[in-house]
Amino acid sequence: MNIILYEPEIPYNTGNIGRTCVLTNTNLHLIKPLGFSIDEKAIKRAGLDYWKYVKLFVWESFDEFLEKNPNARIYYATTKTNKIYTDVKYEMNDYIMFGPESRGIPEDILYHNKENCIKIPMVKMGRSLNLSNSVVVVLYEALRQNNFEM
Amino acid sequence: MNIILYEPEIPYNTGNIGRTCVLTNTNLHLIKPLGFSIDEKAIKRAGLDYWKYVKLFVWESFDEFLEKNPNARIYYATTKTNKIYTDVKYEMNDYIMFGPESRGIPEDILYHNKENCIKIPMVKMGRSLNLSNSVVVVLYEALRQNNFEM
Repeated sequence: MNIILYEPEIPYNTGNIGRTCVLTNTNLHLIKPLGFSIDEKAIKRAGLDYWKYVKLFVWESFDEFLEKNPNARIYYATTKTNKIYTDVKYEMNDYIMFGPESRGIPEDILYHNKENCIKIPMVKMGRSLNLSNSVVVVLYEALRQNNFEM
Repeated sequence: MNIILYEPEIPYNTGNIGRTCVLTNTNLHLIKPLGFSIDEKAIKRAGLDYWKYVKLFVWESFDEFLEKNPNARIYYATTKTNKIYTDVKYEMNDYIMFGPESRGIPEDILYHNKENCIKIPMVKMGRSLNLSNSVVVVLYEALRQNNFEM
């Protein structure tokens, strides 16, 4: 599987997601600009001894990502859709993208990919799950559907 | 649903789990001793404006919990079992218990509840998922099985 973090802001979250990626043999793609330095102490602290094992890809922009990965099937996690993440049939080389903590994936990207937008059901409270929690929920659903073949 | 944290150590994790519980209408049970004060700033920071909405139950010990909740069906999350968390059929009033970050649920509790132990599959790395990530993975599987009725 592949996780894409679009312009992540909080290093602790990205560190935690890196740990999850290592433990599930998942590639982690970061789309710049990042809200932190990649070797910042906070990432290392959150990612512990894991960070050096992360299969990490850093892209200058989402356009660069699309150019270099033209066949990637991407699902876009957002609160702005009605399709539940469990209604998708995931394959092991799919990509699941998450937006920055403060604002989510930009609306123009969602607009052009409506049929691939997915949401995690939750009580309406004006906020959403922590980013690393959102990632692990969708990722483990994708893995479940693929019999946890890591 | 009900989440039980047995002697949690790290306030940021418990705060995050509280946020998840609010967003899923889940009760949160904490078994003392805790590794932090419940009103500590770190919990508030992690739980944000959510913490005051958490349906929180604090128990002096696991024995007290069992005495006051004699009919609770509890699943025990651990790395020390072969049963995968998706192989269980969850009901909405079930309890899912997680141990302290550094050592997991004590072996004697696991030993006496073998048939209710569950694990989250992952690559063997000597460590496991972050506590708040583990909670949200099992919780959302239980919710998925119950059609996300929150």
